[in-house]
Amino acid sequence: MPISAEASFTVETKVAQFPSLPLDCGVTLLGVQVAYETYGTLNADRSNAILVLHGFSGDAHAAGVSKENGQPGWWSAMIGPGLAFDTEKYCVICSNVLGGCRGTTGPSSTDPETGERYGMRFPVITIRDMVRLQKLLVEHLGIERLLAAAGGSMGGMQALEWAVSYPDSVRAAIPIATTARHSAQQIAFNEVGRQAIMADPDWNQGNYYETKPPARGLAVARMVGHITYMSDASMRHKFGRRLRDKDAFGFDFSVDFEVESYLRYRGSQFVSRFDANSYLYITKAMDYFDLSAGHASLSAAFDNTKAKFLVLSYTSDWLYPTYQSLETVSALRGRNIDVAFCELPSHYGHDAFLVDAKEQNEIVRGFLASLEKPKRPTVAQAAASNGRLANRLDYAMIAEIVEPGTKVLDLGCGTGELLAWLRDHKQVDARGVEIEADKIREAIARGAAVYQGDIETGLADYPDAAFDFVVLSQTLQEMRYPLRVLREMLRVGKHAIVAFPNFGHWRTRLSHALSGRAPRTALFPYDWYESPNLHFLTIEDFVSLCRKENWVIEQQAFLAKNREVRFLPNLMAETAVFSLRAR
Amino acid sequence: MPISAEASFTVETKVAQFPSLPLDCGVTLLGVQVAYETYGTLNADRSNAILVLHGFSGDAHAAGVSKENGQPGWWSAMIGPGLAFDTEKYCVICSNVLGGCRGTTGPSSTDPETGERYGMRFPVITIRDMVRLQKLLVEHLGIERLLAAAGGSMGGMQALEWAVSYPDSVRAAIPIATTARHSAQQIAFNEVGRQAIMADPDWNQGNYYETKPPARGLAVARMVGHITYMSDASMRHKFGRRLRDKDAFGFDFSVDFEVESYLRYRGSQFVSRFDANSYLYITKAMDYFDLSAGHASLSAAFDNTKAKFLVLSYTSDWLYPTYQSLETVSALRGRNIDVAFCELPSHYGHDAFLVDAKEQNEIVRGFLASLEKPKRPTVAQAAASNGRLANRLDYAMIAEIVEPGTKVLDLGCGTGELLAWLRDHKQVDARGVEIEADKIREAIARGAAVYQGDIETGLADYPDAAFDFVVLSQTLQEMRYPLRVLREMLRVGKHAIVAFPNFGHWRTRLSHALSGRAPRTALFPYDWYESPNLHFLTIEDFVSLCRKENWVIEQQAFLAKNREVRFLPNLMAETAVFSLRAR
Repeated sequence: MPISAEASFTVETKVAQFPSLPLDCGVTLLGVQVAYETYGTLNADRSNAILVLHGFSGDAHAAGVSKENGQPGWWSAMIGPGLAFDTEKYCVICSNVLGGCRGTTGPSSTDPETGERYGMRFPVITIRDMVRLQKLLVEHLGIERLLAAAGGSMGGMQALEWAVSYPDSVRAAIPIATTARHSAQQIAFNEVGRQAIMADPDWNQGNYYETKPPARGLAVARMVGHITYMSDASMRHKFGRRLRDKDAFGFDFSVDFEVESYLRYRGSQFVSRFDANSYLYITKAMDYFDLSAGHASLSAAFDNTKAKFLVLSYTSDWLYPTYQSLETVSALRGRNIDVAFCELPSHYGHDAFLVDAKEQNEIVRGFLASLEKPKRPTVAQAAASNGRLANRLDYAMIAEIVEPGTKVLDLGCGTGELLAWLRDHKQVDARGVEIEADKIREAIARGAAVYQGDIETGLADYPDAAFDFVVLSQTLQEMRYPLRVLREMLRVGKHAIVAFPNFGHWRTRLSHALSGRAPRTALFPYDWYESPNLHFLTIEDFVSLCRKENWVIEQQAFLAKNREVRFLPNLMAETAVFSLRAR
Repeated sequence: MPISAEASFTVETKVAQFPSLPLDCGVTLLGVQVAYETYGTLNADRSNAILVLHGFSGDAHAAGVSKENGQPGWWSAMIGPGLAFDTEKYCVICSNVLGGCRGTTGPSSTDPETGERYGMRFPVITIRDMVRLQKLLVEHLGIERLLAAAGGSMGGMQALEWAVSYPDSVRAAIPIATTARHSAQQIAFNEVGRQAIMADPDWNQGNYYETKPPARGLAVARMVGHITYMSDASMRHKFGRRLRDKDAFGFDFSVDFEVESYLRYRGSQFVSRFDANSYLYITKAMDYFDLSAGHASLSAAFDNTKAKFLVLSYTSDWLYPTYQSLETVSALRGRNIDVAFCELPSHYGHDAFLVDAKEQNEIVRGFLASLEKPKRPTVAQAAASNGRLANRLDYAMIAEIVEPGTKVLDLGCGTGELLAWLRDHKQVDARGVEIEADKIREAIARGAAVYQGDIETGLADYPDAAFDFVVLSQTLQEMRYPLRVLREMLRVGKHAIVAFPNFGHWRTRLSHALSGRAPRTALFPYDWYESPNLHFLTIEDFVSLCRKENWVIEQQAFLAKNREVRFLPNLMAETAVFSLRAR
């Protein structure tokens, strides 16, 4: 399936009209118009609609080639045949936001009551107001329940708001590079942009539609914005200290550096396509955004939420940093809501969700595929998957212990092989924690709700007894603080299943005692200086720790050469599998 | 010695005049005036002068109470009796920079040739021009060689420039929270500020001294600046999403949030004390700053430098991030120049060097003290220090191996106890690497050039054979990748000295073989689940690795119970000390 950023289909922006829209500020807006586009076909049961939500300066033209001006859409890299938002499978909808200036009612629209442009008489709006209007549009298109609401930046705020405001109307939310509440720094950057516009005499209290727009103020505002959308690293790569059309400093205040030229160009170019008053209103809506407002906590805001979530952030995004996505993830996990999370590597900063779409494509495609009803595996698939698992007898023993229909968390789940098997064969609710991004992508594509994080610190968000089984397979000896991990497993899980290599095996002991070397055996095959194992434990060590910690060993199994060991396991077993519970 | 941010002495700003100053742009400025202050007394041999250098919007009033307006200085927390820049020991000097508007010649000054204000006819200046004027001032005060040049932000650039431009005139440089070259992002933020000023019609091409200043543009520029001086975290702590004098959103464009109010206030207040044209010129000088320009590399820029360096950065400073300080440190280490480095923890962002002075005080005080001629320890001091070392026989054996007058690097040097002992008793050039900030502070105060970093990655900057001896004591077994560390030690050092606990000791082997438990002995006293040791090696393992890697064992010593072991060391020794070299 080739991924192509080239839009191969032509689209036209359509308009829907609604008689009125009540707003959070108490005002009811009359005669509201929405510009929107659709890509792909709605299926018979209207279950394949995905609403895509644009960021601050975006518009309804998300994909395809505009019939009007031949331009590609702002998310053409993500929407189209064979792409994540596959227009051969899904019906994708995008509309310009309330308050915008690209076809949807905003401050530059004419007030039907006065026949004049709203200007600053336009009411102050919120993200929830934007979503309320989108809900009218979605209903107008005959859709009761969206398959997903997805967007980056301000679009991500709308995706979150959809899941909270209309829990029965959206099956999945994909908030990308965003936050559940605007921070002081984010408000500060927006405020600078607003002040730059309002400082321009041409702004004239917003009454410039008959004269000339506040071009200089809007350009300065946009320049600040552009710095925040890029990263220190991407600016270094793109511009460095390169001079613009000169070999030496000019020693004047014309352009010296490429980066100056770029910012001036972007600033002045923005003036021709964006309305300064819309800048004021939309930034204000973002600043007001706080999903936790009126709730005891951010977690509580998700109390009625039914959606599954895919949360994505980007490493170099300092405008909406990863910790903000993790706040959302943490709040969702606090309510035990199904959430996959991954921080994608990119040096493009906040812009990454628009320009660095390759991995985003793969992970979103996998997540959307996981929303399809799980099919029972065919006999051949089951046999193949059993065959793979047969190479890991420890997996087979874990699968034996896990009860059908339960909630399972697999720590260090890798590509989600065990989770997928448990889900397909035991109908478990399968979640995982994994630190390596490329494994997570594969696991999410397999349909597991995988959280990117460190096992040693990553369980803190889960409430007590959130899972029936928490699994840690062949990883305990690689933990820096194994006791903390075991305690956390028994806090968030009713049962913990642990498998580890036995340092007490007779070959290991003999090797150490007689060779005068750190043990090196088939079970511990590494030279001392390159072993991933950080701690060595024997079966006896583990049993003794269970006694000390007052844990109940519910089941235990010992293996050597893929056969079970019953006699003198601490000497004879290579691998041990324990199932525990706290007393 | 109490640290007090309260300035207890009154100071007056003085003025010095110079007939001319040649500039990098080729112009010679005539009739140049410098505003400066001094604190403390110059000693008889004029060897105790410290030049303190202000940041972008600072001035000559660095300490004490201004006679003019009763205000404290901008670095009152660092300069004064008992503080780091101790006015009872040092003579501290601070002057307003060239291009400024606080007493030193700048664009708001009158051009002696025309009798009119310079405005935009003022020549474009550089950081080197600023330093050139400071050199005139320092000579004027009768000082041939500064003890130190120290400053944060733009002041740090000047400190670096001093060490490069006047290598014989400065013994030490203390660049804090700064960079050796302005990055694209830093240029971009400055450019936004300049564009905001120049977009204000009141700027009038810089001719506003007879009319009114571009107050709105300058305020917007300052607001952007303030965001960059703080951090996301400090803004969250200081403002969060708190509303200003209201309980609910105003749904208008007056002030909603505290952070908006703060920025507006700071912006408007700045107008009364700063000249907009100075803003343009000084930001331009920073943007032009690139110490590596005209050199093959940044390291090459330091070829003639004779100063010792203390480089400091702050964890939450994203305007001048730590990686930029590390570029400087790396360039200095590439020339084997004596440099101590520490990243200090603070959530105050770039402002930390002004407002979070406690740790900065301690570390700068220690560094300045280390510039004093090392005194031979008294008999009592030597005995005390020998007494402490006697508890560490491995230290004593290392001290035995190290030859006097050599260059020694101690990995994981802790508080620098061994280094200080080696320096005092063997006159070695003592450097160290340590990861914990509080230990580094103590080590720097002991006079060791300690670099804050991870042993496993931190040696890459050093050239080959930069040291005579590289020491790793009782830490090899805690390394994640011990082989890499050993190889790096033998690259940057002519000899490597390694001490480690012997996992081959008979008690350890017996414990493992017979108990069926992970060995737990006096030598390895930890439970398996809480041991800091990540890899276990025996003496035999180590010797075998040396053979495999083709390393020559020059000396070896084996210890048990603080006595030397000669018979069957792999069974009998608890600790091994090896001195190696590459073949």
